[in-house]
Amino acid sequence: MEPRSAGALAPDHVDDLVRVLEAVRSGRAGTRPELAHVTGMGRNVVTQRVAHLMDAGLLAEGPTLRSTGGRAPRGLRFPAEAGRILVAELGATSIGAAVSDLEGTLLAQREEEADVTLGPDAVLSRVAEIFEQLLQQVGAGPAVWGVGVGLPGPVEFATGRPVAPPIMPGWDGFDVRSFFAKQFRAPVWVDNDVNVMALGELRAGLAKGLSDVVYIKIGSGIGAGLVSQGRLHRGAQGCAGDIGHVTAEEGSSVLCRCGKFGCLEALAGGAALARDGEAAAREGASSYLAAVLERGSAIDGRAVSKAAVHGDPVAINLLGDSARLVGLTLARIVNFFNPSLILVGGGVAEAGDYYLAEVRQTVLSRSLPLATRSLQVVRSRIDDRAGLRGAAHMVMDALLSAEILPTWLGQGTPAGRAELTA
Amino acid sequence: MEPRSAGALAPDHVDDLVRVLEAVRSGRAGTRPELAHVTGMGRNVVTQRVAHLMDAGLLAEGPTLRSTGGRAPRGLRFPAEAGRILVAELGATSIGAAVSDLEGTLLAQREEEADVTLGPDAVLSRVAEIFEQLLQQVGAGPAVWGVGVGLPGPVEFATGRPVAPPIMPGWDGFDVRSFFAKQFRAPVWVDNDVNVMALGELRAGLAKGLSDVVYIKIGSGIGAGLVSQGRLHRGAQGCAGDIGHVTAEEGSSVLCRCGKFGCLEALAGGAALARDGEAAAREGASSYLAAVLERGSAIDGRAVSKAAVHGDPVAINLLGDSARLVGLTLARIVNFFNPSLILVGGGVAEAGDYYLAEVRQTVLSRSLPLATRSLQVVRSRIDDRAGLRGAAHMVMDALLSAEILPTWLGQGTPAGRAELTA
Repeated sequence: MEPRSAGALAPDHVDDLVRVLEAVRSGRAGTRPELAHVTGMGRNVVTQRVAHLMDAGLLAEGPTLRSTGGRAPRGLRFPAEAGRILVAELGATSIGAAVSDLEGTLLAQREEEADVTLGPDAVLSRVAEIFEQLLQQVGAGPAVWGVGVGLPGPVEFATGRPVAPPIMPGWDGFDVRSFFAKQFRAPVWVDNDVNVMALGELRAGLAKGLSDVVYIKIGSGIGAGLVSQGRLHRGAQGCAGDIGHVTAEEGSSVLCRCGKFGCLEALAGGAALARDGEAAAREGASSYLAAVLERGSAIDGRAVSKAAVHGDPVAINLLGDSARLVGLTLARIVNFFNPSLILVGGGVAEAGDYYLAEVRQTVLSRSLPLATRSLQVVRSRIDDRAGLRGAAHMVMDALLSAEILPTWLGQGTPAGRAELTA
Repeated sequence: MEPRSAGALAPDHVDDLVRVLEAVRSGRAGTRPELAHVTGMGRNVVTQRVAHLMDAGLLAEGPTLRSTGGRAPRGLRFPAEAGRILVAELGATSIGAAVSDLEGTLLAQREEEADVTLGPDAVLSRVAEIFEQLLQQVGAGPAVWGVGVGLPGPVEFATGRPVAPPIMPGWDGFDVRSFFAKQFRAPVWVDNDVNVMALGELRAGLAKGLSDVVYIKIGSGIGAGLVSQGRLHRGAQGCAGDIGHVTAEEGSSVLCRCGKFGCLEALAGGAALARDGEAAAREGASSYLAAVLERGSAIDGRAVSKAAVHGDPVAINLLGDSARLVGLTLARIVNFFNPSLILVGGGVAEAGDYYLAEVRQTVLSRSLPLATRSLQVVRSRIDDRAGLRGAAHMVMDALLSAEILPTWLGQGTPAGRAELTA
């Protein structure tokens, strides 16, 4: 069957549908009268648009609500159970993957260690295996509407390809979309891991409803996701927030894996903590970390964070140095971007209140008074899942956008329509 | 007469009117069929909304256009001549002021030296005098619809008040709005000077149509205006882009007028160039600058820039140092914000291609490859007037916004309605 062209629906009609869906998905409207109020459309138009979306399976009747006088209004809801999204979040040393419903609720998930430097074929094949297993786990059900992936490096959002990612040898320009599109016959969106984390926090976490937010992830590497005017600011090439390879110390002799000296990531990231923590263990400076090594465990950023939580003075010093460097970078960002909220995520932030307090203190002492007047610096609470939930929202935002919605609406679901990303 | 409440117009109706006005003002639509195409509204709705806006004097018939087959379409235009805007741009040492039409075309303008440290009463009284003189100069005509002011320091946009501005003693919290609202009986909007410059470039200059832009002004002070997703990013308190008082050199002994050491502005701004240029003149290191002093002129940033253009080696060195520090800061910004265009304005940038080349080279050598793939670093061409034109657009954007338009539409013009800002 020849797909209907995008022109089959008038642009204003599409615009209405997108606004109705947004209002219901975001929870701002749950009845037809609320929709009329929130979207500013007339009640007749709302009724028609809702009917259209119900025919298409994109809205469903909710429970009948208590009347406040007249006829009891019938609730509306977005049928999150109508499809599934496959979502994955790759770190430098880990794979997180899940099957999500259409609202970012995770139906089954898996987390395992992985080495991103093994290259895209090995790593993505493993992700695909996990996807298959998770799909079996949740059992027969609705089709996969899309795939959303977060990668730990710069991604050109328009094409979904990594671009010269410093810690991902072999990934430069790899066609991640085609890889998953073929196997799961669904459209694929790919973004930087920190952008999907920021999106997860914006839609379902601590940043919900806010306009100006910075999400900073301090894992093996360091990166930031930005929200401007309530939406992700991706920048011209989609690499906004790529702060790990900014020079944090001029004249530093510490070589970064990107090839430059003194990068923030090389001095303050999880890999840097692991390097310095291991050295301290071998030199006998930290008995706690030496014991970790003796047990045969590797020392990574999380191990140093744990050591600090247990009161190990070397680890506390290392984390303090990291927190101050991160705080100095964030202070510049605060002066430049003026967010109302900074969310700190990633393994290193798990060192807990001590790390966060150091970051907060440095930010507040180095930023302009006006910019910090009501600034909050908070740990990301849904850290482990913000990326996965955000990836699901990335896919649904795209599928329900004014550009893409009309290309599949009225022809079933987006399942099988890998070309929708084009 | 009791003003009609905002509820007198249905929200969707207001939304339509705002979209029609935006499309015509931006030049994206100049006929009713084009409006239907651009806004996605049905032709009947377009015809009704256009009629409403014509009744209100916010749209006018343009010239009849050449037919492409059927009936010749009648052009539509925004009646820029229907009102006037008073606009002012304050620098640390200057006042720029103009009478503008509703599209930011300057009908009369004045530029003169002034010392912002004299405090708000003295400086704003002088601005008001100039406004009166310029109004006399353009002669009788339509009323003043609004006043737009750019100030050289942080401004809380929602209230129009300067907040702890480092170079403006006595201005902290001053009610700039009331000052002008009383005298000119019109609503007043106030913003940071660099934001209004960025807005001017975005609407009528080199940034027109772009999504991700950074405007950096290197005058006496240094500040930036940001564009994200095609709109000004003001940040949570409206102080985004305030980069002059970020530490550019750790451990520096150079004291900034803000009270801290090593600020970018204290090391690389026009006042810093003036300080170092004057020292060089007095020490006999620069015969060119010594001659300037001997002629009885003060050495400011512009004088050092001129000396560099004339080949003075001391001035060239000073500007090179400034350009490299600015470039280092911009490189961080490029990695963080990923703009497609950096516009460099302000008196120091007038040193010309040499300064810009140094800035560009530093930015390109210190930023990530993806972020600079298609980055342009360009001198602001309408520098002298971007702020004034931007201030007019700031006022009109507010007056024609969905929040404010319905509060005055149908009751004449916004002239006399100082309370519209509230």
